[in-house]
Amino acid sequence: MLGNFTYCNPTKLYFGKDALSGLKDELPKYGDNVLLVYGGGSIKKNGIYDKVVNILKECGKNIFEDGGVMPNPSSVKLNEGIERARAAKADLILAVGGGSVCDYAKAVSVSVNCDEDAWEKYFIKFDDVTCDVVPVGCVLTMVGTGSEMNGGSVITNHEQKLKIGHVFDENVFPKFSILNPEFTMTLPRYQMISGIYDIMSHILEQYFSGEDDNTSDYIMEGLLRSLIHSADIAVKNPNDYEARSNIMWTATWALNTLVDKGKSTDWMVHMLGQAVGAHTDATHGMTLAAVSMPYYRHILPYGEKKFARYALNVWNIDAHGKNNRQIAIEGLDAMERWMKSLGLITNLKDLGADESMIEGIVKSTLVMDGGYKVLDTDEIRSILKASL
Amino acid sequence: MLGNFTYCNPTKLYFGKDALSGLKDELPKYGDNVLLVYGGGSIKKNGIYDKVVNILKECGKNIFEDGGVMPNPSSVKLNEGIERARAAKADLILAVGGGSVCDYAKAVSVSVNCDEDAWEKYFIKFDDVTCDVVPVGCVLTMVGTGSEMNGGSVITNHEQKLKIGHVFDENVFPKFSILNPEFTMTLPRYQMISGIYDIMSHILEQYFSGEDDNTSDYIMEGLLRSLIHSADIAVKNPNDYEARSNIMWTATWALNTLVDKGKSTDWMVHMLGQAVGAHTDATHGMTLAAVSMPYYRHILPYGEKKFARYALNVWNIDAHGKNNRQIAIEGLDAMERWMKSLGLITNLKDLGADESMIEGIVKSTLVMDGGYKVLDTDEIRSILKASL
Repeated sequence: MLGNFTYCNPTKLYFGKDALSGLKDELPKYGDNVLLVYGGGSIKKNGIYDKVVNILKECGKNIFEDGGVMPNPSSVKLNEGIERARAAKADLILAVGGGSVCDYAKAVSVSVNCDEDAWEKYFIKFDDVTCDVVPVGCVLTMVGTGSEMNGGSVITNHEQKLKIGHVFDENVFPKFSILNPEFTMTLPRYQMISGIYDIMSHILEQYFSGEDDNTSDYIMEGLLRSLIHSADIAVKNPNDYEARSNIMWTATWALNTLVDKGKSTDWMVHMLGQAVGAHTDATHGMTLAAVSMPYYRHILPYGEKKFARYALNVWNIDAHGKNNRQIAIEGLDAMERWMKSLGLITNLKDLGADESMIEGIVKSTLVMDGGYKVLDTDEIRSILKASL
Repeated sequence: MLGNFTYCNPTKLYFGKDALSGLKDELPKYGDNVLLVYGGGSIKKNGIYDKVVNILKECGKNIFEDGGVMPNPSSVKLNEGIERARAAKADLILAVGGGSVCDYAKAVSVSVNCDEDAWEKYFIKFDDVTCDVVPVGCVLTMVGTGSEMNGGSVITNHEQKLKIGHVFDENVFPKFSILNPEFTMTLPRYQMISGIYDIMSHILEQYFSGEDDNTSDYIMEGLLRSLIHSADIAVKNPNDYEARSNIMWTATWALNTLVDKGKSTDWMVHMLGQAVGAHTDATHGMTLAAVSMPYYRHILPYGEKKFARYALNVWNIDAHGKNNRQIAIEGLDAMERWMKSLGLITNLKDLGADESMIEGIVKSTLVMDGGYKVLDTDEIRSILKASL
């Protein structure tokens, strides 16, 4: 905990099978006009839409709809959402969906009362929020991004081939989030394991950085062990409530600002994955899975001690008679075996990328400087080629 | 995460060597009248009092003093504090001290605008708060209780020989807390290690309960490993900033409502320790240390699987060729050796208790029902005798 920091996370969470009843406690705190934001319509098939709309009506709200938010919400759609929120004079934006829907709702919330172009202001210039923010609430139907309890918002500009995240301050965090693990059970297996890897990647991005021996590192090792344990159960039985609920809770705490306190962070896997996403529109978690092993094997020599600790404390590698390098390598090997056992995509070809796209992806990759090695262009190219 | 629960912790934390500057950001949010609450006066010797008062003056506040809060704040002192807060028309109660001072400030905050007797209402009848709460802020000078980010408040009625805690809702949590690890460095060694064991006990009370395999258990194992690691450094070098800061951060997260989410909890060690405290006025953490080993050895057979897990994941016991019972016993043995290496008091005699007080302590012990074994009077007596 070497650094100075502030911590404040005011989001109220309602968790469990009865979580949606919390919506009745929250809605009276806001005005009458609710912009209901959702994705491709799966919530209409699985009944969640009806349950939410019934509660909104019960609480006397005027419902304005904004459906069709795509898995990688676009800057074009964002502008549409801003217009809808303005037309609705929205007092509350209620996001019902996964991280994309929640990210999108936050981007709308900071733009409704702002005259500037939202993409330019928040995702190119990374400006602070200077206008009134419309409150956001969230009913989560897919786990992974942690967007339900943080200020993160990732938007893709397809024209510019850029997928960029802005981490907003606590006044943009959802005021409340409804977390019912049962709502995540209808997800296809591909989405479930993609979300699981997104969670793991969030933790690793914050773990593989820094030289100090920080409480945050120990908390992250606990979260990783819990995630691995529950993921193994959930892939065998997606309806195991205990496993799905542990995964949901781990996802929230993996990226709600707790575990990076007092330490530096990396986020380079996300930069590589987001560049892949901007060119392929592939599922976020899978883009992370595809680039992770080549990336971590590349930086291992620069963070050998931490990779050895990871191998011991997360993967239970037997250290007997081995040096740090060997232990570290065995840890990554164990991680790769586990990823394949889950069914994660571990190469870019299966995500629709090919050799001809590599230069474009290299150009779209933002370089971070908090990890064990600041990558140059050749290294980025080489990691992406190794990921093909 | 089997249960339904809500989570909301709105306390803003300022952490690090510059944390006190956060007070300047917070004070303008409140009215002019500040009740400054503190303990026996050590903050006047170490300069923290002057620093705080200077900032209060800089922000134009009217300062009303309420010093002399004792380590186990009494119901008599509580009534005095309520009167002082009323006379001051306090807009903010600023607690500068350890957990006792912060606990006391919260008890005052919920009583200022209430006509009933505070001890009766909150600590005997466990009534809800029905009046306006005066906001509390905290500048922490001793770690352990977690009071800086929760609703807990423990008050002692010496006449009735009762030391009882009330856990208030989130509207009673401190609005902000200032956590500068350097402020804890002037503490005598006895207080430091007592605080360290208080933290460990908070985690164990929440860990040793329930049969499910919960993310919270994994987080607690991480916190325990971090605590043990940093405590070993801090007892050798109390001025090691990194170790002291990790201990401070672990203390906050050990008892700020996170790690009991979705699981049952025990708290029987605290009931025993508090009964000892009511009869001896001994330091809180030491009373917990003195009764822990006899208690845990007594309940081990009822929670063998969890005690074995504790031995493996926290104390790195080698499981080779051993059954769960043996592993569990070795884990508790390792814990006891560690407690002694820290210098903790592990018997009641050293805290001023003797055989003649046992019956009185038995009578003052509240029985909890969330642990692996609900104790009867004979078991309580037997554990206390084994702790002598």
